[in-house]
Amino acid sequence: MSALDPKRTVAELKDLRARTGDENGAWRVAWTDTWLDSRAWLREKLDALGLETHTDAAGNVWSTLRGESDAELLIGGHMDSVPGGGWLDGCLNVLAGLEVIRAIKERYGGRPPVTVRLVDWADEEGARFGRSLLGSSACGGTLDPDAERERTDADGIKLVDALKRCGVDLDTMGESHAELKNAAAYLELHIEQGPVLLDLDLPLGVVLGTFGVERHGIHFKGQAAHSGSTPMNRRKDAFLAAGRMSQEIYEITDRNGGVCTIGSCVTRPGIVTSVVAECDITLDQRHLDAGALASMLAEAKDASRRFAAEGGVEVRWSKLWDIAPMPFHPDLLAMAREAVVEVAGVNHDLPSGPLHDAAEVARAGIPTVMLFVQSLHGISHNKIEDTKEEHIEMSVAALDALAEKAMVWIGARS
Amino acid sequence: MSALDPKRTVAELKDLRARTGDENGAWRVAWTDTWLDSRAWLREKLDALGLETHTDAAGNVWSTLRGESDAELLIGGHMDSVPGGGWLDGCLNVLAGLEVIRAIKERYGGRPPVTVRLVDWADEEGARFGRSLLGSSACGGTLDPDAERERTDADGIKLVDALKRCGVDLDTMGESHAELKNAAAYLELHIEQGPVLLDLDLPLGVVLGTFGVERHGIHFKGQAAHSGSTPMNRRKDAFLAAGRMSQEIYEITDRNGGVCTIGSCVTRPGIVTSVVAECDITLDQRHLDAGALASMLAEAKDASRRFAAEGGVEVRWSKLWDIAPMPFHPDLLAMAREAVVEVAGVNHDLPSGPLHDAAEVARAGIPTVMLFVQSLHGISHNKIEDTKEEHIEMSVAALDALAEKAMVWIGARS
Repeated sequence: MSALDPKRTVAELKDLRARTGDENGAWRVAWTDTWLDSRAWLREKLDALGLETHTDAAGNVWSTLRGESDAELLIGGHMDSVPGGGWLDGCLNVLAGLEVIRAIKERYGGRPPVTVRLVDWADEEGARFGRSLLGSSACGGTLDPDAERERTDADGIKLVDALKRCGVDLDTMGESHAELKNAAAYLELHIEQGPVLLDLDLPLGVVLGTFGVERHGIHFKGQAAHSGSTPMNRRKDAFLAAGRMSQEIYEITDRNGGVCTIGSCVTRPGIVTSVVAECDITLDQRHLDAGALASMLAEAKDASRRFAAEGGVEVRWSKLWDIAPMPFHPDLLAMAREAVVEVAGVNHDLPSGPLHDAAEVARAGIPTVMLFVQSLHGISHNKIEDTKEEHIEMSVAALDALAEKAMVWIGARS
Repeated sequence: MSALDPKRTVAELKDLRARTGDENGAWRVAWTDTWLDSRAWLREKLDALGLETHTDAAGNVWSTLRGESDAELLIGGHMDSVPGGGWLDGCLNVLAGLEVIRAIKERYGGRPPVTVRLVDWADEEGARFGRSLLGSSACGGTLDPDAERERTDADGIKLVDALKRCGVDLDTMGESHAELKNAAAYLELHIEQGPVLLDLDLPLGVVLGTFGVERHGIHFKGQAAHSGSTPMNRRKDAFLAAGRMSQEIYEITDRNGGVCTIGSCVTRPGIVTSVVAECDITLDQRHLDAGALASMLAEAKDASRRFAAEGGVEVRWSKLWDIAPMPFHPDLLAMAREAVVEVAGVNHDLPSGPLHDAAEVARAGIPTVMLFVQSLHGISHNKIEDTKEEHIEMSVAALDALAEKAMVWIGARS
């Protein structure tokens, strides 16, 4: 694989960090000046490479290297970060894709067998307006403008106004879908954001798909009562039922796999001298298998009702959000495993707990796969997010190897 | 027991309710105009009875019926209520005491064998400034002015200024202690505020003493982690450890008796997509026996450390407040049982979980006892607080019978 220079990707990532970050982390929050600046910096590199670049109706930036076939290999990522984010989440994907396209261009004398496109998705994180995967969902075809119209940021600025300032009209974002007309495969490299590869001491892994998510609020309603005068057997203690759920979710994942999280607990009246009258907890459940996810939800509901009945309290569930699991394409999974083994000697398959733009592309019917590179600390969305430079370089090489295999595969299918 | 008219007490309680309450409950919050008005209303009745009445340095109102002996029988209560409180909490005590003194005066031709005094304690509830038992602790000798000096209410008004407006100087409140110079016994009737007598279908009970209290904050510190990408066995889940405490406190009371309450739970970052990094709960433990209370605290600490260690989180305890148990006087307990049996046919001994002014008097070395009358719903500090009128009348009769026995007992001792 001549022509590829993974060290250049590391250097470019450092340049970007210096330009858009400070001692508190990265500040490339979508629809802000720093994000626009990071895109202008990227645009110079795309133009220097002679790619055809335009921004679509959803604010996604597409750069095209025309090939012998109109069938397209897409490689994607996102320049935007959370506030105070890491130096790799999202932009590694874009800059590794840039390096791979550079290598492909050189390797094929400017005209590869299939068309290759790099996409920088707009607002993957949803950090400012609370709506993640905004650009990719518009392109994939699942964005409902009416559901997003009233969103505002912490300062009360409306999403529609922030988009307009960047030349995007919420109501026409769906026109971005035309970009997928000739798409034949979609590849995305991402840091793992978890500790699995770190624990296994492996640099790279193939992502089986993105977890389905069931996200619910659980409300337990008991009765306030004086902490001194109310016998224990007369209490209707909403916190007792909620507290029992804290262990139950670990038993649910022992039985089903996947992950469960109670992230928030709010007590009312919430004073030291009263039994808790009302307790609200949130439950986030994720699994790659839809059937297992449904079982996890059913088991959590059963347990909550049992704890409520045993404690003399009431329980009410309300759905916050859900999304189906999105398994990736079996042919691309096989190619990805080959590519990882070629570069790292060994591969580990793992699901993705966090969502990615790749899930929206896969949902639109485009054959998709992702690669993960090891995260140090198992941490992301934080300034301490990090990956060894040696592993970053290996990940660029694996993406390049995968792109070559995918081009052959696309050629054979088209 | 001629001369006693318990129906008059019910009528006076209803008058007071009409004067100082509305559809949201009673508003006799200490140091407010409504409280001062309730005391002016009471003062008319005390003056009409020809008692010597004055307000002491702590704002407590004392009314004296001189007897053959200077040794004093004290009967106490408090006119103040919580905001939106019930029609009985505190003022039943005062108005029942008033009726008993009326009867004693008539029964002994104006001069009973011992001196009898009614005390209306100032600010039992601490509802406005967060310091309960203010007047009685000043009188008992446990009030530290420096510890209360900076208190403010929700509007930022300083306690010292609110007191000054009512003629009380925080720094000289301790002079109230002189009022106890000749005190030989202290009696207090109160609504139970819990469901014990209701469950037993008994109108009256004798109070063994007030619970000791251990009140602590417990801080569990784990690590924030992405709800999707963090395997269950890699989590440091602060809510898991806190949740396990919710059941543990019921096991602690199964072993030791007493009561335990986790009244508040706060999670950080407290978002649906993160494992809980920090969880703060409050623990309130109460028992009549000091040794058992110490065991309850030790068991809770042990359990919290075990849960923390098992979950890979840290735990830190911080004391919020504590007070030792205050058992009442054995001779007065015996007389109180006799009085209750005479009036109701049957008695039930029970401890008091809530604190009362009686605890401060007992702590000052004055032989003390309390009577409880059944609370409907087992509820207080709420507009729905209630007691059957028939039971209110029985409670006035029992207090009168107890006062007669106590006068004989004081006479024999002095």
